[in-house]
Amino acid sequence: MKEFDFIHRYIKPIASASGFSQGLSDDAAHIPLAAINGDLVLTLDTIVAGTHFLATDPAESLAKKAIRVNLSDLAAKGAKPMALLLALSLPKGTDEAWLAAFAAGLAEDCVAFDAPLIGGDTTSTDGPLTISVTAIGSVAGARTGLKRSSGRAGQLLCVSGAIGWGWLGLQRALGQLQLPEPQAQQALQHYRMPMPQMALGARLLITSGIGASMDISDGLIADARHLADASGLRAEINAAQVPLASADQPMIEQLTGGDDYQLLFSLDEACLEGLERDFPSVQSIGRLTHGSGIVLLDQTQQPIRLDQEGFVHGS
Amino acid sequence: MKEFDFIHRYIKPIASASGFSQGLSDDAAHIPLAAINGDLVLTLDTIVAGTHFLATDPAESLAKKAIRVNLSDLAAKGAKPMALLLALSLPKGTDEAWLAAFAAGLAEDCVAFDAPLIGGDTTSTDGPLTISVTAIGSVAGARTGLKRSSGRAGQLLCVSGAIGWGWLGLQRALGQLQLPEPQAQQALQHYRMPMPQMALGARLLITSGIGASMDISDGLIADARHLADASGLRAEINAAQVPLASADQPMIEQLTGGDDYQLLFSLDEACLEGLERDFPSVQSIGRLTHGSGIVLLDQTQQPIRLDQEGFVHGS
Repeated sequence: MKEFDFIHRYIKPIASASGFSQGLSDDAAHIPLAAINGDLVLTLDTIVAGTHFLATDPAESLAKKAIRVNLSDLAAKGAKPMALLLALSLPKGTDEAWLAAFAAGLAEDCVAFDAPLIGGDTTSTDGPLTISVTAIGSVAGARTGLKRSSGRAGQLLCVSGAIGWGWLGLQRALGQLQLPEPQAQQALQHYRMPMPQMALGARLLITSGIGASMDISDGLIADARHLADASGLRAEINAAQVPLASADQPMIEQLTGGDDYQLLFSLDEACLEGLERDFPSVQSIGRLTHGSGIVLLDQTQQPIRLDQEGFVHGS
Repeated sequence: MKEFDFIHRYIKPIASASGFSQGLSDDAAHIPLAAINGDLVLTLDTIVAGTHFLATDPAESLAKKAIRVNLSDLAAKGAKPMALLLALSLPKGTDEAWLAAFAAGLAEDCVAFDAPLIGGDTTSTDGPLTISVTAIGSVAGARTGLKRSSGRAGQLLCVSGAIGWGWLGLQRALGQLQLPEPQAQQALQHYRMPMPQMALGARLLITSGIGASMDISDGLIADARHLADASGLRAEINAAQVPLASADQPMIEQLTGGDDYQLLFSLDEACLEGLERDFPSVQSIGRLTHGSGIVLLDQTQQPIRLDQEGFVHGS
């Protein structure tokens, strides 16, 4: 199946849902200024077979993962999705059933997240399947968006939900971990189709007392360090407070494994209760303090030695 | 060299020139609404080693080609560049000299075209070098931008300059064509670093009597058909009027070879003279008429049989 045929048969019907795409019939998409409600937030993340997902993952879920890891970045900035562009590098000989399934996943998430596909490019490759998405969102009104660098000393450090599902899911997919049902399916689902925290991100943008915000893609420990560094502060995390995906599996792996796509943010203590009422899975896990780096404390407030501070994708 | 090191050492200094990028220190770039002057135009094109360029092409020129093929799409829509995002898939073991040269080329074109790099992602691959650029531009004021579909019957069909340099350059780079100097160097330069027609595009946007506009990437014949199809018309091209890169080389190959990145547009006849005064390389090559498809006419107005209507990148 040639590139033009694939685009014509599978991608155009998806893109035609948006007035911005001109049905992919032109050189470029067009978004009228009047349709732009607020500042723009732009992000691009690429996922590569063998590095960010397994070649055996279902095609539908790959389309969704590529979209969702980008929407997660928008969510962390409090942005509402406005448009997506897709760069797809397909291994030669990819069969049509795979393409149809990929397109079906793409279509479902464009609708589910109100994130229209407005353009892109499809190429063939001798290498691994590579899916790159550019996501464009907007933050309304006078707010300037949420930043990694806006943390303030004394604020609580919070996560939007359980940490470790990404690691559990990857281990399960690799066949390296036996999990009971329904936990095994939940873990696979989290790894293959993480859920970007759009509603919470939108709420954080208008929450008084909000400090820094980012999404957790490289693992809680590595990303807490990123947030602390960007804010010029130190992150103190109480291990016992972190909601873990599984109490039966090793803690450090869950805290460093990556692919969680929960939000990590800092908040004035007085503002936590109001937020927890609407988002019960939000959990305070520690504090930002003066200093630098990150420390993980046990229940006696002693630092836990970290051999592996976070997940870095192999180069 | 790890991904983080490459980004830190080479890419951050380039991106830091733009206030939109936040020095690549956050999850996403941020463009204030106040900085957006007009409608947005968005495009994404990917170039792959072995398909869109040769693995032996210099690193500097690859960075520039990836940027320029996208800027060419913006030019065709009359848009001014506002921001770029880069998805780079690097073969494992790419050496640092190559990375430094690539970054130098990137930096030069970001400055030359006032197109700041505001984000992206770098991954490693077992496959070919793949460079994907998302370009965001703006068209000012009440104009709705230039479209492929806006051609009107009776308008002249025009090109912005000589056709065939892309084909000559590729043949030269492959060692399949002997050309005298300086033509050989010119051809290589056109193939490796095409020149997007930004100034002409901006002018077309405010030219009265303008019809359809697109850039020529797949070859003049194929793209004239795209323009005619989108406009619901027929393109009649007089072969003798087309300015060729080389009078000594085969015409059909130059008309169908692709990689020209000149503009193709339709214009009311009365408006050509004013445009030619400021852009002397603009040349009328035929007309849009009622009907469909494309016809290439010889000097006796007889159709020239086309075996190969345009260049389609292999799937």
